[in-house]
Amino acid sequence: VNPNLEIFSQGEEIITGQTVDTNAAWLSQQSIALGFNLTRHSAVGDKIDDLVGVLKDIAQRADCCICTGGLGPTSDDLTAEAVTLAFQMPLQFDALAFQQMQTFFATRNKAMPESNRKQAMLPQGSLRIDNNSGTAPGFALQHERCWFVFLPGVPSEMRQMFQETIHPLLSKRFELKPSRLITFRTIGIGESDIQQRIKSLRFAEPVQLGFRADTDEVQVKLLFPSGFPDPELKALVASVYEKLGRHVFAIDGWSNASGDLVSVVDKLMLSGNHKLAVIETASQGLLAAKCIGSNWLLEAHYHQSMLNFAERRPVPIDRNDLIAIGKELAFKLQKSIGVNLVLIQIYAEDFAQFIDFNQTIKMHCLLLNNQEFVEEIFLLAGSAKRKQNQAALLTLDLLRRNLQPDSII
Amino acid sequence: VNPNLEIFSQGEEIITGQTVDTNAAWLSQQSIALGFNLTRHSAVGDKIDDLVGVLKDIAQRADCCICTGGLGPTSDDLTAEAVTLAFQMPLQFDALAFQQMQTFFATRNKAMPESNRKQAMLPQGSLRIDNNSGTAPGFALQHERCWFVFLPGVPSEMRQMFQETIHPLLSKRFELKPSRLITFRTIGIGESDIQQRIKSLRFAEPVQLGFRADTDEVQVKLLFPSGFPDPELKALVASVYEKLGRHVFAIDGWSNASGDLVSVVDKLMLSGNHKLAVIETASQGLLAAKCIGSNWLLEAHYHQSMLNFAERRPVPIDRNDLIAIGKELAFKLQKSIGVNLVLIQIYAEDFAQFIDFNQTIKMHCLLLNNQEFVEEIFLLAGSAKRKQNQAALLTLDLLRRNLQPDSII
Repeated sequence: VNPNLEIFSQGEEIITGQTVDTNAAWLSQQSIALGFNLTRHSAVGDKIDDLVGVLKDIAQRADCCICTGGLGPTSDDLTAEAVTLAFQMPLQFDALAFQQMQTFFATRNKAMPESNRKQAMLPQGSLRIDNNSGTAPGFALQHERCWFVFLPGVPSEMRQMFQETIHPLLSKRFELKPSRLITFRTIGIGESDIQQRIKSLRFAEPVQLGFRADTDEVQVKLLFPSGFPDPELKALVASVYEKLGRHVFAIDGWSNASGDLVSVVDKLMLSGNHKLAVIETASQGLLAAKCIGSNWLLEAHYHQSMLNFAERRPVPIDRNDLIAIGKELAFKLQKSIGVNLVLIQIYAEDFAQFIDFNQTIKMHCLLLNNQEFVEEIFLLAGSAKRKQNQAALLTLDLLRRNLQPDSII
Repeated sequence: VNPNLEIFSQGEEIITGQTVDTNAAWLSQQSIALGFNLTRHSAVGDKIDDLVGVLKDIAQRADCCICTGGLGPTSDDLTAEAVTLAFQMPLQFDALAFQQMQTFFATRNKAMPESNRKQAMLPQGSLRIDNNSGTAPGFALQHERCWFVFLPGVPSEMRQMFQETIHPLLSKRFELKPSRLITFRTIGIGESDIQQRIKSLRFAEPVQLGFRADTDEVQVKLLFPSGFPDPELKALVASVYEKLGRHVFAIDGWSNASGDLVSVVDKLMLSGNHKLAVIETASQGLLAAKCIGSNWLLEAHYHQSMLNFAERRPVPIDRNDLIAIGKELAFKLQKSIGVNLVLIQIYAEDFAQFIDFNQTIKMHCLLLNNQEFVEEIFLLAGSAKRKQNQAALLTLDLLRRNLQPDSII
């Protein structure tokens, strides 16, 4: 049986709902991947009695607990004090922690406020967890059944400390049997459609099948227990991939093609030394915006409607012949900028339809790849924001399917 | 003293971190606005013992508890069963709930699966909470100290049921003294800078002062207890506004200018019947993307660098004179599209600097308003994504400051 782990978050900003507790979700995913059994999330505000009560309960209930928040320098940061009261562990000045804080301020040319001295007071007998990107050190200690880890609530600091220090410590302290997670990441296909396609497959009893749909993609997750035979695993991955086909743009935990759609496209663009220009309508700049940090996108142009564009032309073109206008534009851009790839979105519906939650928009996409055009039609539904996001992703996916090898398995 | 309220979330997707628990944050904000004192969030998976244990504890501890999740038709939806076990309340078939579910399926031309019958089994003596947008009804009941409300976990259904039914019920059942929250929303100024500016102000003891910084803005929050004298409140709001000045783009709970920056700009553009075109560099399409659903943005053009553009021109212009190129472009766009407003971003740094977390970019912005130019320089720091987001928002804010009246108080 895997050891139990709980997550405990502290802070008024969490309990009042001003901050959504993304730390709890992130830590849960990390801990499950390590092989823990996640049993509970708790959060309280800056109230010493609540903190002490929760810590005492967890000490009886869990094998491990990761706590975030409450390590700052101000008077409402109470975690260390709560540990003292709950577990009768007095606080002790940690000279090295204090020195690290002094260095932190010195390298930033700032004076260290006196209040920060408090952060160097750690429970006696606890293990200090260094914080390389902030002032608050963390600490870890065993009390009764539970090994407690205390980390700051700032997500970037918390994640770095978890990955650098806590992850290896957990692997050493607990006998963990990590299961293997393989995630098929798909686009352009709904969850029920996916279930229909794979319902004929037989999954051996210990394999857990899961689905996750969000605004950007639908994921199919296969969780294999430790020690699951390799040939069976391979066969199952191959048969799921066969059923889902080209909708799969990445397979995390299996394929070189991994990560979200933008990072898959980024790798393909870089390895092929491609350059891209884009004409957006429905996605209104979002396609370009998603590619930030990549230097293969040279230009992007948004027109509220291709119709506007047609009307402005010196020699009027048949308003219905938007595809012809699109193709002409693509060739022009290709030549003037010197890119091999041009993506164009064309839609002829009006603004009222676009912002109407209940109306569906038809978007015509063109990809000019050297001298050849690929054309595809996509349907966009839902709110304006959802249509925009779908338009950006489906257009990028047209590019992905034209650059990616036939099989990514 | 305000009554205590806890939030209890149920579901494997929450506890495993596949879903971030946004319900807890949303319900906390709503409940605090009503006048509750938020004391704890808890979440467990689909384990009957854990559910029963948490329910029993909360019944002793809280005056009110809002529970989400576990009301679905499948075998891992255990909330009703847990209530039966924890509070000795047998389940009873609710004919009206069943009829509502039948209608739900009938209007969608679907057969109701037999498994849905389970959702009409409600704890005896509980109050049914109708669900107008899904199949799972909610219910409410008193046990020991606590009034429990059970709602589905689907955020849209949960929110609708809370607003239509739970909100008025809570106001009736509890003696609540809602406090008044006034939020100054600022851009272009850091949290420590804000603290410096307002540190000379005296806040009467019962007024709570808070800060919140996220990727888009920094907020200053003033929470006034119920019954706080109006003249003092007005004076305090005026003096905070005076210290922060034009960095304040909205004052939620006070001014007509409220909401996020994009919705403030949207109102100004619509009321003035303005039309806009944009040339983006650093924000790479994100400025246009943020304006989705508004029909006053007619065109947006992204160029990886203004340098590229200068090089492509038939008659070469001095490479250093990017501002002149920008102005020429702005006039051209204004004339060809027929907009009164044009925004242009210019930056001359290279790609390596842009993606380097440790390097700062200088962005020069121009706003052409009819025949006049306004110019401003912004510094962008951090990751490429952060620079992009700051560029989009600061450019939009240049527009906001030129359209908004001198005082929004």
